[in-house]
Amino acid sequence: MRARVFVTLKPSILDPQGKTILGALRSLGYGAVEDVRQGKFFEIDVAAGSAGEARSLAAEMADRLLANPVIESYRVEVEEPGRT
Amino acid sequence: MRARVFVTLKPSILDPQGKTILGALRSLGYGAVEDVRQGKFFEIDVAAGSAGEARSLAAEMADRLLANPVIESYRVEVEEPGRT
Repeated sequence: MRARVFVTLKPSILDPQGKTILGALRSLGYGAVEDVRQGKFFEIDVAAGSAGEARSLAAEMADRLLANPVIESYRVEVEEPGRT
Repeated sequence: MRARVFVTLKPSILDPQGKTILGALRSLGYGAVEDVRQGKFFEIDVAAGSAGEARSLAAEMADRLLANPVIESYRVEVEEPGRT
């Protein structure tokens, strides 16, 4: 089963990388861009009996390793096999 | 309007960072994890008249700056205001 963990900086945390990308997009002529924030995500293939089990495993991994809960928040999605 | 661009390495490209995370998760006791791939994503606030316009702008930005089309693929999602 595949779980996806999306990790973003909390809204109160400055994102200098996003600001740099914002500047680069504007200098390419994309004046309509108002803000950019960058995050990361993880596609995790996990052997789990149910979507709920995969979700709780992925959330635990995010808490322990993938995200820094002081400055980042995360969201977990589980892709159930046989659904597209 | 907010567009999200998800960038992943193409399946044929090795992902050493993902393998490192896989090893770290296994050493933390998560033996059920079979594979990990890491990607990045961008939340882009853009002034656009329609979701379609925001989507095509975001795709163009992904092509020109955010993704390396030789080794990466991307997917664009647009969050329409007033929908949750």
